[in-house]
Amino acid sequence: MPPRAAIVASGSELVRGDRNDRNGPFLAADLLRRGVVPARITVVGDDHADLEDALREGLAYDLLVVSGGLGPTHDDRTIELLARAAGVGLHVDEELAGQIEQRSRMVAARLHRPYADFEEGVRKQATLPEGAQWVGLVGTAPAVVLALGEHVVVALPGPPRELQELWPRVCETAPMRDVLARAVAAKRRVLRMFGVSESAVAQALAAAGGDGDGVGVTICARDFEIHVDLFVAPGADTRADEIERGFEEAAGAYVFSHDERSTAELVLDLLRERGLTIGTAESCTGGLVAARLTDVPGSSDIFRGAVVAYGNEVKEAQLGVPGDVLARFGAVSAETAAAMAAGARGTLGVDVAVAVTGVAGPGGGTAEKPVGLVFLHAVGPGGELARRLDFPGDRETIRLRSAVAALHLVRTLVTKS
Amino acid sequence: MPPRAAIVASGSELVRGDRNDRNGPFLAADLLRRGVVPARITVVGDDHADLEDALREGLAYDLLVVSGGLGPTHDDRTIELLARAAGVGLHVDEELAGQIEQRSRMVAARLHRPYADFEEGVRKQATLPEGAQWVGLVGTAPAVVLALGEHVVVALPGPPRELQELWPRVCETAPMRDVLARAVAAKRRVLRMFGVSESAVAQALAAAGGDGDGVGVTICARDFEIHVDLFVAPGADTRADEIERGFEEAAGAYVFSHDERSTAELVLDLLRERGLTIGTAESCTGGLVAARLTDVPGSSDIFRGAVVAYGNEVKEAQLGVPGDVLARFGAVSAETAAAMAAGARGTLGVDVAVAVTGVAGPGGGTAEKPVGLVFLHAVGPGGELARRLDFPGDRETIRLRSAVAALHLVRTLVTKS
Repeated sequence: MPPRAAIVASGSELVRGDRNDRNGPFLAADLLRRGVVPARITVVGDDHADLEDALREGLAYDLLVVSGGLGPTHDDRTIELLARAAGVGLHVDEELAGQIEQRSRMVAARLHRPYADFEEGVRKQATLPEGAQWVGLVGTAPAVVLALGEHVVVALPGPPRELQELWPRVCETAPMRDVLARAVAAKRRVLRMFGVSESAVAQALAAAGGDGDGVGVTICARDFEIHVDLFVAPGADTRADEIERGFEEAAGAYVFSHDERSTAELVLDLLRERGLTIGTAESCTGGLVAARLTDVPGSSDIFRGAVVAYGNEVKEAQLGVPGDVLARFGAVSAETAAAMAAGARGTLGVDVAVAVTGVAGPGGGTAEKPVGLVFLHAVGPGGELARRLDFPGDRETIRLRSAVAALHLVRTLVTKS
Repeated sequence: MPPRAAIVASGSELVRGDRNDRNGPFLAADLLRRGVVPARITVVGDDHADLEDALREGLAYDLLVVSGGLGPTHDDRTIELLARAAGVGLHVDEELAGQIEQRSRMVAARLHRPYADFEEGVRKQATLPEGAQWVGLVGTAPAVVLALGEHVVVALPGPPRELQELWPRVCETAPMRDVLARAVAAKRRVLRMFGVSESAVAQALAAAGGDGDGVGVTICARDFEIHVDLFVAPGADTRADEIERGFEEAAGAYVFSHDERSTAELVLDLLRERGLTIGTAESCTGGLVAARLTDVPGSSDIFRGAVVAYGNEVKEAQLGVPGDVLARFGAVSAETAAAMAAGARGTLGVDVAVAVTGVAGPGGGTAEKPVGLVFLHAVGPGGELARRLDFPGDRETIRLRSAVAALHLVRTLVTKS
């Protein structure tokens, strides 16, 4: 049995739903890659009893990782409550205190405030459970690692950037090495699909053998795509091969990728292999397709630009959509989408252009052209492709799905030609 | 004391960090608005022992809300484990079974499959804990409400859209009405700031009186802004007034809003009041500013379009940036930003234009123009404003902060003139 981990994320803004916890998913995904099973993520506020309960529950697992509550104020009580839950004492680590003091003196000087204002906070932040070691610093907060027999507890600062910087160093400490030595990293196989429903994928996977006997199957609908992961335990490769073969026979036509690249990354790689540049012409997506493409580092050699044409006058002036096409067929039409794509190809001087026009809602829908009606058009040196889509859902969903569908239309166009 | 709630979100993709849980934050924020304190959110996978532990812990709270695990397969065990944790039996609700059967027969017909394939799943989804009532259906899953003395348990389907549709109806059931009758809705006061550090805000709030005595203070840095919420219990208005007054004296210059509108929404409202249209010219943000503005329903009367000019040839051809400005000062310069804004204003035929050019990284930085260097320029009928920014962080952070800073530059330009 591989070691199992509990994660506790503390922060009143998290438990109040003001902000999504990013630390739990980050730590869970990283632990899984290292072969530790993430069993639970608990989010609690700064109520001390709630935090202490969550810590006590977490101590039952092989590994407990806590984020937040390491700051200098009286509200930051993770260390004190952890020591209490673990039944160990507290002490000030003088070496740590020295390092935090050094940093805090710099902060004090910059703020023109006396260091005395910081002294209490420094002593607090240098207080550790008996037997703990520390790793750090990022800012003025350390990471704290405590071995309790077979169990290991790690406390990390709450800001995601600080946590992510300290975490790999925590994994190098002796107690964490002991945990990771017992870990069994399952191999992960990835299947990414587009244009198929989650339930059809679930049925095809079940028919191909499904979960169990060393193969864990997860299915996740994300951004209009279906992501399937097979987690394959050592020795279960043959079974995983069988599932994959059976599944590909039934639904292989929908599989577009076996790796974890984003669709934007994959599209840019396909274009790069063929020496093609791309641009977009966007109405209802308002720049989302361009934003996705430029989110990829190094996209600038492939992606040249975009025209976001919300107003009809911009469609005419910037994309050369003929006024009579707009008048006859309307801004949301296959004809306008085709003219936008052709216009963008010329205007932006790119090899491939994709256009999106539709009714994102909530207003603007008619009986003939309801909210969710979207036209896509992609054009390249080898030909062109058009799609008419009817999306359910709200404005955000329609925009997001349109942007993803536009990327897939480019993928299809480029791989076909 | 207002009632306290635990939320349990089950789903293996959630606990593995593949997907962020959206149900916990949604339910927490809504409960808070209704005056119930969200005390913890626990995310667990489909391991039965982990789920049962989480449910057992949740039963200690006044209200337990569970999402996920209500589907037709053997992996969906929320109802069974809930009944076991609560010590009650199970039975098939025949009325519910009839309704689910009706829906499933339609699905079967559409898929050309015999209804017999669905029958076991239908009986399973119609199985409820003794004493429970159901609300629904959305899809084939109901919401389940169970009163256990003073405690109430609610089980909801995992897909966020289904959960959000059923939740308001759950709140109308008799057991939930009893919980909500004991709730004490704190009033929420909102302060939104830009251009100030989180620690400076924390210090100013502490100096103004800080947390306690009926006023809960949360500070949250989000998207380069600082969001402060004061949760004011009945009778604590005077104290909240004092904190707000003291804080505004110290840091009022940074406050740009007292409501929950997004910055894009606020900027569009300011423009609408003045009868102005807007467009953007974007390099390193790659369409993010336009995407933010068009994310707002009804933005099309104000936002006309954007030119995403990643390549220099697009900056010249589409925005009329003179070739010698690009050659002399470079694409990332105050001069190019100014020319992009002026060009977009003419090209797009808008009253106000904002331009962004910078080095988002990770590549492309030099000693003179390092990663994180960003130039903004906004121009309108009443004048223009320029900003040079040096952002720390990764590509995503730099792009996001640049987009937010661009919106704030427009806000400043428009409110000044």
